[in-house]
Amino acid sequence: MTEQERISIERACERLVVDFAYFSDRQDYEPLAALFAEEGSMIRPSGDPLVGRAAIMKSYQSRPGGRITRHVCTNIRVDVETNDRARGLTYAVVYSANANEPAETRVGEFEDEFVRTPDGWRIHTRRARFVLFPSS
Amino acid sequence: MTEQERISIERACERLVVDFAYFSDRQDYEPLAALFAEEGSMIRPSGDPLVGRAAIMKSYQSRPGGRITRHVCTNIRVDVETNDRARGLTYAVVYSANANEPAETRVGEFEDEFVRTPDGWRIHTRRARFVLFPSS
Amino acid sequence: MTEQERISIERACERLVVDFAYFSDRQDYEPLAALFAEEGSMIRPSGDPLVGRAAIMKSYQSRPGGRITRHVCTNIRVDVETNDRARGLTYAVVYSANANEPAETRVGEFEDEFVRTPDGWRIHTRRARFVLFPSS
Repeated sequence: MTEQERISIERACERLVVDFAYFSDRQDYEPLAALFAEEGSMIRPSGDPLVGRAAIMKSYQSRPGGRITRHVCTNIRVDVETNDRARGLTYAVVYSANANEPAETRVGEFEDEFVRTPDGWRIHTRRARFVLFPSS
Repeated sequence: MTEQERISIERACERLVVDFAYFSDRQDYEPLAALFAEEGSMIRPSGDPLVGRAAIMKSYQSRPGGRITRHVCTNIRVDVETNDRARGLTYAVVYSANANEPAETRVGEFEDEFVRTPDGWRIHTRRARFVLFPSS
Repeated sequence: MTEQERISIERACERLVVDFAYFSDRQDYEPLAALFAEEGSMIRPSGDPLVGRAAIMKSYQSRPGGRITRHVCTNIRVDVETNDRARGLTYAVVYSANANEPAETRVGEFEDEFVRTPDGWRIHTRRARFVLFPSS
């Protein structure tokens, strides 16, 4: 693999991380689910793992609406393992609030496995956890 | 457009986003205004739009001094539309304080249109908005 | 230097910044020290400068354990000066807490000089400072 090919893969995976935050914060769950491989899975801080695009979309769509969020994603650290597998760790500061209320802040991480599919790079497995809770 | 050309454009636009924060936080407003195209515009959360480099520089220079800020910019998401046009969305957590006072935190977004000029990529239009206000 | 070479250097330096946060937050200080050139130095907000990998590792290892941290690094701004020298500025929001306590937040900066060594890019000198203290 050339360095240029590695950088190209890293950026594709970085974009998946940013896109997940984007679609999550816009509550646009069909494109959010499409960031995952067909049988991809999402392991949340609580609850059973979500397996498959349909289950991921359904779980997000069943959330109560109206809550404003921003998933501030930083320190995206991608390791390309092979031509079609990569791993990533991302820090996430999650701000969330109901309209006209002060936002809550939580600091966590996304741990990702990425896979190259015929349609491009996708999330194979995403594990989310919270780590720190700033005072408020 | 090759993938390498696309990445090169994305990085040029990402750098404009980071440079805007840099010059704004250093209160260095001539290079800040030079990040915009000659007739570029800045649409702020409040107040009339600023049109043209001179108006942007003048508006920033007229601010009361002494306030310390850091524009923490993340999730920079650039879409290259043509060889000389691109769009971007960036999350910004803005910390600001007077000396020796606790900092205020606001969470917002920059929505950008970028344009390639004879001098390189510049900001054509920047829209800034605040979205969330963490408790303090 | 081609644009592709410049981007490659920038990304190598960006990765050093992310890796420093990663190893620091995992309290894994041998690989943290290895991010520095053999005679690299770390200038902290307080205390004497740490000169050389051994001194850097020893200083970090002597810290009291148990404190959870996340160094949220953003706005990484690398300027490549020559084929083997670069400079960087990074914003860092540092969250830290003892277990089961609310996290403290501090906003600061890392100012870096990077150098190309026979083993790849390394940190030559890192200066850390705090700038803002959000209310809590």
